[in-house]
Amino acid sequence: MSYCIATYRCYDEKTDFAKKAQGIAVGLTVGSWTELPAAKKEQMSKHLGKVVQVDVHEGNPGGRYADIQIAYPDVNYSGDIPALLVTVFGKLSMDGKIKLIDLHFSETFMEGFDGPKFGIQGIRELLGVHDRPLLMSIFKSVIGYDLKELQTQFYEQAAGGVDLIKDDEILFENPLTPIEKRVAVCKEASERAKDTTGQHLLYAVNLTGPAFSLKDQAYKAIEAGAGAFLFNVLAYGFDVLHELSRDPNIPVPFMAHPSLSGALYPSQAYGIAAPVLLGKLMRLAGADLVLFPSPYGSVVMPKEENMAIKQALTTGQGKDYISGNTGDQSSEGAFLPLKPSIPVPSAGIYPGLVPLIMRDFGKEVVVNAGGGVHGHPMGAASGGRAFRQAIEAASRNIPLPDYAENHPELRAAIEAWGVKQ
Amino acid sequence: MSYCIATYRCYDEKTDFAKKAQGIAVGLTVGSWTELPAAKKEQMSKHLGKVVQVDVHEGNPGGRYADIQIAYPDVNYSGDIPALLVTVFGKLSMDGKIKLIDLHFSETFMEGFDGPKFGIQGIRELLGVHDRPLLMSIFKSVIGYDLKELQTQFYEQAAGGVDLIKDDEILFENPLTPIEKRVAVCKEASERAKDTTGQHLLYAVNLTGPAFSLKDQAYKAIEAGAGAFLFNVLAYGFDVLHELSRDPNIPVPFMAHPSLSGALYPSQAYGIAAPVLLGKLMRLAGADLVLFPSPYGSVVMPKEENMAIKQALTTGQGKDYISGNTGDQSSEGAFLPLKPSIPVPSAGIYPGLVPLIMRDFGKEVVVNAGGGVHGHPMGAASGGRAFRQAIEAASRNIPLPDYAENHPELRAAIEAWGVKQ
Repeated sequence: MSYCIATYRCYDEKTDFAKKAQGIAVGLTVGSWTELPAAKKEQMSKHLGKVVQVDVHEGNPGGRYADIQIAYPDVNYSGDIPALLVTVFGKLSMDGKIKLIDLHFSETFMEGFDGPKFGIQGIRELLGVHDRPLLMSIFKSVIGYDLKELQTQFYEQAAGGVDLIKDDEILFENPLTPIEKRVAVCKEASERAKDTTGQHLLYAVNLTGPAFSLKDQAYKAIEAGAGAFLFNVLAYGFDVLHELSRDPNIPVPFMAHPSLSGALYPSQAYGIAAPVLLGKLMRLAGADLVLFPSPYGSVVMPKEENMAIKQALTTGQGKDYISGNTGDQSSEGAFLPLKPSIPVPSAGIYPGLVPLIMRDFGKEVVVNAGGGVHGHPMGAASGGRAFRQAIEAASRNIPLPDYAENHPELRAAIEAWGVKQ
Repeated sequence: MSYCIATYRCYDEKTDFAKKAQGIAVGLTVGSWTELPAAKKEQMSKHLGKVVQVDVHEGNPGGRYADIQIAYPDVNYSGDIPALLVTVFGKLSMDGKIKLIDLHFSETFMEGFDGPKFGIQGIRELLGVHDRPLLMSIFKSVIGYDLKELQTQFYEQAAGGVDLIKDDEILFENPLTPIEKRVAVCKEASERAKDTTGQHLLYAVNLTGPAFSLKDQAYKAIEAGAGAFLFNVLAYGFDVLHELSRDPNIPVPFMAHPSLSGALYPSQAYGIAAPVLLGKLMRLAGADLVLFPSPYGSVVMPKEENMAIKQALTTGQGKDYISGNTGDQSSEGAFLPLKPSIPVPSAGIYPGLVPLIMRDFGKEVVVNAGGGVHGHPMGAASGGRAFRQAIEAASRNIPLPDYAENHPELRAAIEAWGVKQ
């Protein structure tokens, strides 16, 4: 018998949580139980959900709640994310104050998933960078700009030595800069920049359009030289990412954008917790890189949630409550038999934050900046250089202000934005 | 110039909402504005978002908030739902306490959408029922049951004179009851019941599986005689429904299940309001019938939200804030140039609720019951008859207890569950 396990946080001042848990375990699986004849019970027992744990928190200032764990037999659903989500949180999502806070995939369920095609190592090999955090920059303005203007912006970013450049997630297929032409002009700029920086660069072009045309759109972009795709996963559903990422004819990494996720994770009492939504499910669906709101910037996510996302993307999937086995949390990819995805904490990132990012994420992280590159007093190329200098200094445990003495780009960045401890 | 208009409710005790609105209008379109040179401004003005309205509510007991309306130029996004949602609520969803409470589609944007293929009239024509609410029942237990058992359950429901029967949304593709066999045995039971009831019946079979295989799955089911599909829209994304519903080779109605929607609509400060999520977007994507939590039963949604969903599914889309035109709210399908979808308020429905349902929804509604059919003291067929009797009585403005005097099935239902005024 094999089960996926969902953990819910339920708020209710009065309810009998043990009874509620039993109601979920029966109601979302076999439908009814106590009234079944014995012979039927025997036949149905393999389909019956099980209450794993009910942990009631009385007297919590934010309201009485319980964390309820239910194990769902894999035999009840097909091996795809929509079926699992509908089973564990379809109807239940509408049943009062309840939030899906964890989701444990069984080994059987995971058999249908290859996870990220590249993972952290694969991305590093594509870029030829192994010993430091990666650096990404984002186009500043894209809508209404033509190919030449985008190419200029691309080159300026590339010249500063960034490893990755991503489209803005709101740049859709459009007559001015269609995907295959965008890829072509940016590839040209990328190669020109490489002559100076000596560095390979991945451009994550935004894969957009009608769902059932995305594969053809991807093939067209790859034909034009696309090296990576940005994808608004939640606008299309996790299964669409899964289908794209597993396609052998799309041999490039996927970068998942957290677009729309704020409609799901921030509420205390409703929705799906960020580590499930932007962590486990993104990795399961095959995202090689995953963006999420950093705990540092303007669009803020609490630090603990960031750390839980990081763990979901890079290590195991936590305690296996059925077997009692605890995945080895210390080693990369342990227990979750999928390649790790690179965390990309985003928004409000400037060079003076790099030591903090590396303290929180280590070196397996993408330092991702928009304004921190383009808003640099000496221009976007210097913005990229300032970040590279900050990464170099932090990797060598040199305080940024010391390193900045001989590095004018970093110095200017520190003068503009400071250093955060 | 053509715009789609998003309305947000933002909670913040201190912020300058006018400034925040301006920041959204610029930040989610052209990126920056004030620093652009005049010539560039001219070139970019057609891409610039506009603040339509900022309505600040000071001193609200639940917290200071503002309703902010932003108009987004259609030229900025492609004509599909993912592009529109990412534009209006992609990054913004993660920016503090903000909920998308309305979304107005421009005529230009709607050109890419045919809406429901059947709509209310089309469904009524398929069923040959024009003068009363439709009646639907739901399988009681499905997981682990074989074809013969499902067929028996189907026949019992059908014999009571229901118009529609739907799969449980957690019944996925499985070896015991694969879709084409399920369709075949239920079709046989349906025809057998018709010999008694004289009534045509639609069976909404659950369309499941990997996203890019759904069309083939649908074709296979249609080949076997499928007359309608149940679909877990939010598990796949609105665009997948759109692509399926517009396919001329899938000439059957789609019934949208609200599965997972509770992760998005119930929070006051986050998410997407139910009338947008389960109303406008479902209709735009082509759902002919739309289920949502009724205000009557166990899984409850406030009455006003139910009424707003009904309006979004059946009438116009509200005031056009750009032109000042107000759509004609009184006539069906006015302003929103799409066929109306039938509202299916669900959960906790028993025959004694029918007068209340008709008072709230009129006759353009599906009365949808699970336990209210299967739990009838005289069996499921009598459960269906009790509902049909309640519908007949309520349509003729006869009090249910009076009508029950000569109708034993209704009488038994009233004895079991009562009548709600």
